[in-house]
Amino acid sequence: MSGNTFGTLFTVTTFGESHGPAIGCVVDGCPPGMVLSEADIQPELDRRRPGTSRHVTQRQEPDTVQILSGVYEGKTTGTPIALLIRNEDQRSKDYGNIVETFRPGHADYTYWHKYGIRDPRGGGRSSARLTAPVVGAAAIAKKWLKEQFGTTFKGCMSQLGEIAIPFESWEHVPNNPFFAANNSVLTQLEDYMDQLRKDGDSCGARIDVMAENVPVGLGEPIYDKLDADIAFAMMGINAVKGVEIGAGFRSVAQKGSEHGDELTPEGFVTNNAGGVLGGISTGQDITVSIAIKPTSSIRTPRRSIDKTGTPINVETFGRHDPCVGIRATPIAEAMLALVLMDHALRHRAQCGDVRVTTPKIAAHVK
Amino acid sequence: MSGNTFGTLFTVTTFGESHGPAIGCVVDGCPPGMVLSEADIQPELDRRRPGTSRHVTQRQEPDTVQILSGVYEGKTTGTPIALLIRNEDQRSKDYGNIVETFRPGHADYTYWHKYGIRDPRGGGRSSARLTAPVVGAAAIAKKWLKEQFGTTFKGCMSQLGEIAIPFESWEHVPNNPFFAANNSVLTQLEDYMDQLRKDGDSCGARIDVMAENVPVGLGEPIYDKLDADIAFAMMGINAVKGVEIGAGFRSVAQKGSEHGDELTPEGFVTNNAGGVLGGISTGQDITVSIAIKPTSSIRTPRRSIDKTGTPINVETFGRHDPCVGIRATPIAEAMLALVLMDHALRHRAQCGDVRVTTPKIAAHVK
Amino acid sequence: MSGNTFGTLFTVTTFGESHGPAIGCVVDGCPPGMVLSEADIQPELDRRRPGTSRHVTQRQEPDTVQILSGVYEGKTTGTPIALLIRNEDQRSKDYGNIVETFRPGHADYTYWHKYGIRDPRGGGRSSARLTAPVVGAAAIAKKWLKEQFGTTFKGCMSQLGEIAIPFESWEHVPNNPFFAANNSVLTQLEDYMDQLRKDGDSCGARIDVMAENVPVGLGEPIYDKLDADIAFAMMGINAVKGVEIGAGFRSVAQKGSEHGDELTPEGFVTNNAGGVLGGISTGQDITVSIAIKPTSSIRTPRRSIDKTGTPINVETFGRHDPCVGIRATPIAEAMLALVLMDHALRHRAQCGDVRVTTPKIAAHVK
Amino acid sequence: MSGNTFGTLFTVTTFGESHGPAIGCVVDGCPPGMVLSEADIQPELDRRRPGTSRHVTQRQEPDTVQILSGVYEGKTTGTPIALLIRNEDQRSKDYGNIVETFRPGHADYTYWHKYGIRDPRGGGRSSARLTAPVVGAAAIAKKWLKEQFGTTFKGCMSQLGEIAIPFESWEHVPNNPFFAANNSVLTQLEDYMDQLRKDGDSCGARIDVMAENVPVGLGEPIYDKLDADIAFAMMGINAVKGVEIGAGFRSVAQKGSEHGDELTPEGFVTNNAGGVLGGISTGQDITVSIAIKPTSSIRTPRRSIDKTGTPINVETFGRHDPCVGIRATPIAEAMLALVLMDHALRHRAQCGDVRVTTPKIAAHVK
Repeated sequence: MSGNTFGTLFTVTTFGESHGPAIGCVVDGCPPGMVLSEADIQPELDRRRPGTSRHVTQRQEPDTVQILSGVYEGKTTGTPIALLIRNEDQRSKDYGNIVETFRPGHADYTYWHKYGIRDPRGGGRSSARLTAPVVGAAAIAKKWLKEQFGTTFKGCMSQLGEIAIPFESWEHVPNNPFFAANNSVLTQLEDYMDQLRKDGDSCGARIDVMAENVPVGLGEPIYDKLDADIAFAMMGINAVKGVEIGAGFRSVAQKGSEHGDELTPEGFVTNNAGGVLGGISTGQDITVSIAIKPTSSIRTPRRSIDKTGTPINVETFGRHDPCVGIRATPIAEAMLALVLMDHALRHRAQCGDVRVTTPKIAAHVK
Repeated sequence: MSGNTFGTLFTVTTFGESHGPAIGCVVDGCPPGMVLSEADIQPELDRRRPGTSRHVTQRQEPDTVQILSGVYEGKTTGTPIALLIRNEDQRSKDYGNIVETFRPGHADYTYWHKYGIRDPRGGGRSSARLTAPVVGAAAIAKKWLKEQFGTTFKGCMSQLGEIAIPFESWEHVPNNPFFAANNSVLTQLEDYMDQLRKDGDSCGARIDVMAENVPVGLGEPIYDKLDADIAFAMMGINAVKGVEIGAGFRSVAQKGSEHGDELTPEGFVTNNAGGVLGGISTGQDITVSIAIKPTSSIRTPRRSIDKTGTPINVETFGRHDPCVGIRATPIAEAMLALVLMDHALRHRAQCGDVRVTTPKIAAHVK
Repeated sequence: MSGNTFGTLFTVTTFGESHGPAIGCVVDGCPPGMVLSEADIQPELDRRRPGTSRHVTQRQEPDTVQILSGVYEGKTTGTPIALLIRNEDQRSKDYGNIVETFRPGHADYTYWHKYGIRDPRGGGRSSARLTAPVVGAAAIAKKWLKEQFGTTFKGCMSQLGEIAIPFESWEHVPNNPFFAANNSVLTQLEDYMDQLRKDGDSCGARIDVMAENVPVGLGEPIYDKLDADIAFAMMGINAVKGVEIGAGFRSVAQKGSEHGDELTPEGFVTNNAGGVLGGISTGQDITVSIAIKPTSSIRTPRRSIDKTGTPINVETFGRHDPCVGIRATPIAEAMLALVLMDHALRHRAQCGDVRVTTPKIAAHVK
Repeated sequence: MSGNTFGTLFTVTTFGESHGPAIGCVVDGCPPGMVLSEADIQPELDRRRPGTSRHVTQRQEPDTVQILSGVYEGKTTGTPIALLIRNEDQRSKDYGNIVETFRPGHADYTYWHKYGIRDPRGGGRSSARLTAPVVGAAAIAKKWLKEQFGTTFKGCMSQLGEIAIPFESWEHVPNNPFFAANNSVLTQLEDYMDQLRKDGDSCGARIDVMAENVPVGLGEPIYDKLDADIAFAMMGINAVKGVEIGAGFRSVAQKGSEHGDELTPEGFVTNNAGGVLGGISTGQDITVSIAIKPTSSIRTPRRSIDKTGTPINVETFGRHDPCVGIRATPIAEAMLALVLMDHALRHRAQCGDVRVTTPKIAAHVK
């Protein structure tokens, strides 16, 4: 209950700071007998790796993962799987100038007040770099869920700053640095980001993720609801300020006669529920949207104070993502996978089996 | 980890169904020595009680709470506090007609698939009635937080169906059945609800809640973030489909130079953060908005199937809230109070003390 | 994590004090669809009920249990099962004389130091009366384990004060107030207890319990070992000061060539392990022994201090068990059942199935 | 809840196998601001290190610990502290001969039945080697407890096989390989062990550990009792079959007038309670005894079966401790420290402060 463990039966305990020697995690509760090697995990880490385009931080990290335990002769043994990722490209000096001050919108203010001490090197523990071990752990969950139920995960960026990105096709997503499911807006997105960098500013983003072929019946009816745990997982991602399931905030203006997804023998007719009713999965696609705030570390001068309360102006140099949302898609997929994995095991514990239904209905991000 | 316990150090374990003999909860972890009696809890229960206006369910429940344990000579002893609320006005026959069918948008579909059995009486465990024990438990948390830090909670409805409710003054909230902070729209809201009932339909709502005088430093930096736990708590409320902290989804279109709340020696200049940075409270007001979907039990006929998969038409009669959002404000306040209480104890465990700052800044719902 | 919940997946959260209006618990995580009624629970409560012989407290409590939730039309629904037991025979005045003082060997000293407040009525929360809800909850676990695996539970007293009770036959256990598996020593036990009461003194006891037809593979290999959880459960029973699994302390003087239980195609040849190897069940009988200290509330005058630190003499009158061990057998069985139930669900979560082996070997208490 | 995490607020999550690349743990919940470096941890690891005398396994492991996170500029930051220990001296071939068979008294039988797969290299996860990370984590707890309350830990072996080791003086403990508090029996112990090795057999041991200067008030009154958590922690140590607190099994034959520790203004007169009453610390020394079974891997031929159920004879060669109890003293101290650390934080959470009393009374192991 100390905060750094995610999950109840499939647990991920992470450690490390942005500029320490290494980051990593311990994955506990993985079922035994699943074929697993670094080759199953590395591709997911590569999807969120920094330095892959001019629109993200230029920090160069291979993010090479090593499995330290829990696998014997290529199979999981049911014991903890430890993942280790070495930090290669630390440049702590970049951050020297903000040790005594607080960046508007940054966690350094709250860390300092909570602990009376903080690691300023790259934001220390609060760095988005700490999502890497989680993405690694989720690769294990994704593999198990796919083998058991055929469950798969998808995601894309649906808005960058003021620019909406209409959904065209999933095929586009891997072929651009923004995880955009649309080719026609790419130039617009590139120009927008280039201008942001010129201005020394940053922007937010909206990310949509979904899970397909989800078993029906996952989730606890009260408190540990599937959608509650999804909201917990998503809001826990760095810089997230909002979470929607299914119709989300559009539900407010809907009538019951419009929102409630009708049923036919072929399945649900719509998916306003986003695949969850009463906290339990329906077997439809689970659809989630999140709002990501703009990066707080920007070159634009801002009013702030230092530790003594003296007014100062802050300009943050060094390497930062001008939009943390650009790399957020694989992270959001990962958190969704961890939640489903955990609830698949929880359901199996109480109800003894897990059923899959074939969802007939498209989710709203399609 | 069986789902029906909320919190880690200040825990609330609830039990009961809408039409069983009683509902209630066990509150564990309350600090000893606090003056407590039913009189501290009943007013909060009365705020969410059904049957108080023609716009909510006409079920008549006094929701009288009894403390069964944990209090000796008017003070908490540090042992579990059990709260018991008898169900008085069950009418199971109202629900006989939907035992074999699934209501579009209702949990009866997922309960039946998860457990292979369900209690159809008033939705059983999935009924919003189960928020009553939580509101009772939260009254204990609210009292402790107020005595310790002066923390207080407020909430209002900011949208009912298509009707936006501009914020005027907190004074209005207790004086209308909608928890609206605005008098001028009341007639419009009344007419809207009357028309809904005529149409046998339902609508959604948007609720804003906030906490004032919040200590700085509450929340774990990763996973068990304060805002992640708030999202978990809010999404766990019946019918909630979306959660925002601070600027929420407006953050997407904001620039970093706009979103990041500047600091002066007097405090923060704005509150886009909604009182949380890096998962930890800043000492500003914590501001949360939630989206509540329309009630699924409506008289309007809808397409569905029965347990055998045969197509049928469903019309739901009986007593239902045409907008569950109308009574959701005290529930959302309660969940926010439980999260803050839990994190206040967690912070005290690791860091040994809890500091309060005087927030200078208005939250966006004001 | 507030202490009053037992278990991880099959959880029991208890509440109440010896002289409050009621005691009870919430059982969460019970699999759905099991036939259950008060008739399944009451007999277990009756086995530990007070006032059934002159050798236990004369407090008259029917300990009638009521199921408040979690059962619909005679079957468990998978939602929390709340059990309520009213206190009928409180006599708080009996305890007035010890409010300001501390009884040697009694929890009133530590409660007062921990909480700065305590409920002196019958020991409040520290009373052995609080084992009643646990015995009720365990009746649910016992029923499920028996239906699933044929697992059954047995126990007996093997020593009362200085008197060893050699095992003769399980048939004797239900036919005497001591749960002794031996008829020839009964008179001796009766005389011993009568003399104790004359002397205003108390004595300890040793209890042996076992589980038969236990599935193989239950238990986590590190920390949450099956035997570690059994030790936790047993040491958590009021007045227990020692726990042994299998050969227990006799293992110290054993050679490896004697202790290690040899295997044949028919099964294990001995059971020094007590049914657990490496923290995981072997499928043999699980055998546990516990040491119960003498009751601390006795008429014999003892030196102590009051809250101000002033020396005083304490003599405790009122109704007390001169040997709490006499009613401890069903309690120890209950705790063992709860541990096995929890681990059966945990095993099912990670490994997906639970296997039963037929144990060929007698446990040491036979 | 996946088993490999110890503690609730001060948590230790371990990973690794005896012959994998590395073992280690993540320590979460450590208060911020404590001076900490490898130099605080290494000495404790050296106390349990293998290969330090001819009476333990000859495996050569430096057990050099590296702190990977959670410490900045020599101080704890309040974030997870990851400890890494590389395995240097693996010789998997030593174990090739037992891959298909089950050693009497060994976990390989249960691992194989639970998971359907096991890592035979040195017992994999079930190896006592996995106590190293725990001892490292406990060094952090010990330092914090000493700085906060002056709490210190001691332990010794009180019996080796059939040889009782009367307590003489704590001074002797560091000066012999057995952790014996007695010089006169050393030759006898050496000869006993030499004979055991000649015979290819193993033996058990009894270990006594204690904590001094313990705050009063630590422990939850029900279930998560201090003594219940101690029993859980001790029984969780490899090969432990019995646990006693204070008078332990001697309580059975005691009268209440003898067992209950009398109080004077100067403190308790005796310590039959072992420092715990009603599950809560009294402020006296906490005294614990454990029974450790003989090592199951011995050269003496024993009857067993292989995975096909075919009868075979097993002789285990390779490097093993002929008495795992010899190195168990620092491990038992470590587990006791982890339990006290966790409850110190838990007490602080609910009750807000931790009081220390000066214990006047000697514990029974003195």
